[in-house]
Amino acid sequence: MSSTAGQVIRCKAAVAWEAGKPLVMEEVEVAPPQAMEVRLKILFTSLCHTDVYFWEAKGQTPLFPRIFGHEAGGIVESVGEGVTDLKPGDHVLPVFTGECKECRHCKSEESNMCDLLRINTDRGVMLNDGKSRFSIRGQPIYHFVGTSTFSEYTVVHVGCLAKINPAAPLEKVCILSCGVSTGLGATLNVAKPKKGSSVAIFGLGAVGLAAAEGARIAGASRIIGVDLNSNRFNEAKKFGVTEFVNPKDYKKPVQEVIAEMTNGGVDRSVECTGSINAMISAFECVHDGWGVAVLVGVPNKDDSFKTHPVSFLNEKTLKGTFFGNYKPRSDLPSVVEMYMNKELELEKFITHEVPFSEINKAFDYMLSGASLRCIIRMEA
Amino acid sequence: MSSTAGQVIRCKAAVAWEAGKPLVMEEVEVAPPQAMEVRLKILFTSLCHTDVYFWEAKGQTPLFPRIFGHEAGGIVESVGEGVTDLKPGDHVLPVFTGECKECRHCKSEESNMCDLLRINTDRGVMLNDGKSRFSIRGQPIYHFVGTSTFSEYTVVHVGCLAKINPAAPLEKVCILSCGVSTGLGATLNVAKPKKGSSVAIFGLGAVGLAAAEGARIAGASRIIGVDLNSNRFNEAKKFGVTEFVNPKDYKKPVQEVIAEMTNGGVDRSVECTGSINAMISAFECVHDGWGVAVLVGVPNKDDSFKTHPVSFLNEKTLKGTFFGNYKPRSDLPSVVEMYMNKELELEKFITHEVPFSEINKAFDYMLSGASLRCIIRMEA
Repeated sequence: MSSTAGQVIRCKAAVAWEAGKPLVMEEVEVAPPQAMEVRLKILFTSLCHTDVYFWEAKGQTPLFPRIFGHEAGGIVESVGEGVTDLKPGDHVLPVFTGECKECRHCKSEESNMCDLLRINTDRGVMLNDGKSRFSIRGQPIYHFVGTSTFSEYTVVHVGCLAKINPAAPLEKVCILSCGVSTGLGATLNVAKPKKGSSVAIFGLGAVGLAAAEGARIAGASRIIGVDLNSNRFNEAKKFGVTEFVNPKDYKKPVQEVIAEMTNGGVDRSVECTGSINAMISAFECVHDGWGVAVLVGVPNKDDSFKTHPVSFLNEKTLKGTFFGNYKPRSDLPSVVEMYMNKELELEKFITHEVPFSEINKAFDYMLSGASLRCIIRMEA
Repeated sequence: MSSTAGQVIRCKAAVAWEAGKPLVMEEVEVAPPQAMEVRLKILFTSLCHTDVYFWEAKGQTPLFPRIFGHEAGGIVESVGEGVTDLKPGDHVLPVFTGECKECRHCKSEESNMCDLLRINTDRGVMLNDGKSRFSIRGQPIYHFVGTSTFSEYTVVHVGCLAKINPAAPLEKVCILSCGVSTGLGATLNVAKPKKGSSVAIFGLGAVGLAAAEGARIAGASRIIGVDLNSNRFNEAKKFGVTEFVNPKDYKKPVQEVIAEMTNGGVDRSVECTGSINAMISAFECVHDGWGVAVLVGVPNKDDSFKTHPVSFLNEKTLKGTFFGNYKPRSDLPSVVEMYMNKELELEKFITHEVPFSEINKAFDYMLSGASLRCIIRMEA
């Protein structure tokens, strides 16, 4: 048992006091974990678009002051009542969605959408008592998606922590907490391309490149990257992308371009932009008879997906995925092992690194499109 | 070799001279089979909605005079050059779509949409020479979907014939040529409900009831039938339907009714009406996390399928099927065996029987909604 167990911990955290304003490094108080909660020391965290999206809070319910951050690697400091799966010293990846192991979804082989711990971006408190574990001089600071990893210490529900191989370097595998697993799983768990098949990837950001990495691992022979920014094509080659299409270069719809390139359509497609038009194209560009399109990108609230239903009768399938269909606790440890076995390459996603004190630079890199993933090192 | 091999056969056929007008019993000349063709004696045929649809020819290219009919059982009379899989005396089911065994679709495990022999409702001639094998006093009579089973003899491409167990009663298994296999396969091959699961079936005509039969065979514990005609509910019980919903009885959308009945949605749904609204409901009524909706019914040409894309991200899957994903030659023989093993019940689909001379009565039964399947007995 660590000497801090049961005590309030005072530590540094990057607090978002207002929407869209730079984070402010503050000393926060982190309360001990309650029932089914775990307090962990974060060693590395990284920035994901979802942090930026809710930090900008354009359209969402603003919830401030808040501690963002949901891609991270850490070590268990202490555990609350009822936690038997984890103990101090365990290496863990916190995840924005959870796995209670008790609900219908957790008991289904097909779902990872846990009833209890499914992502809730509007909730800024812990489930056990409806309160925050963070405070500054008595003022509560809201949590973000149950993780709040932009803090040296955080409290997370045990169901949102994947216990991983302690030999795995946390500064690398921390990016498996969200985006990379989402894209990778979309291909490996949902699209399931066969060896030698063709796959189109819409959107070559970190999630799309992880989807391409999945296609590479699955042995796809043609991986067609689709992006409106041609500058992304060069980098994408490292992720197995073999051909590029910029829809702006053509007068005809991109699905027709892809159909011509592939004698009728690709075997699989993975949509990672969230643009409704890209979603429709991603569906329409798959081959009849066997094509499967997988939606990953999050659409706008009022978007409507429209297509001719005969495409379905022609045996095209449309699926979607949440966190790459990985169950956080059950499945993430094996994704870490894929990295340890050198099957999955993570280094190429990590384009930048900053000390915690310079976390706002990570926001700048992402907003300018310069970074795929920027690692934030908590200890100087 | 039969004595008629290589000769023109003169026999009776029911000819549609004009759209929507009663068929006329005529003496037709049936030419010998050419390369890769087979001439067969039809013993039993049945009437399917698709015959009626193209006979009415509202909106389709009218192609008359024509011999309709595509659900049937027969015996091979003679074979053309290059046919090695079949010989005179073999029992066969002709199918409106085919399996060449050479194209990408036939070589794919996932598709049954043969490039060469995929259904073509606009073609009224044989592939080999672009001509008809039927004539009356020198006037060619068009074929229908390569089968034209409303004739005592017909000529069919070998790729559109399933060779079946000769012990199987053709007056029963003839209905496996089209609608029953389509509905059965939609459930067993595409929706794949697990034992104990819930399945909603939209449309309780022959195809929908066959889909229900598939759910019953798969061991579904709740089979919810949805139909605008409440009279169909009683009959549907024989096919395993356990609960009924008539959307007209509710003010709220039927997907909400089903979600309330099933704690969030059914595990699987199968849409057999072709109504675009039913398609959308069938998708939206499946449970998030694992729900799969399968479209079977043929929509109108200008219909647009619209839904909120978040349903896909919540891990609902939308698929469609053509002929229940059965490959006609490879798979139909095993469906016949399901009947022979008493796993699949066919008798309950057969509500009427008429001699060939009264074939127009079968149209009346179908148009009035009185029949599921009416068997037409070719020999008096």
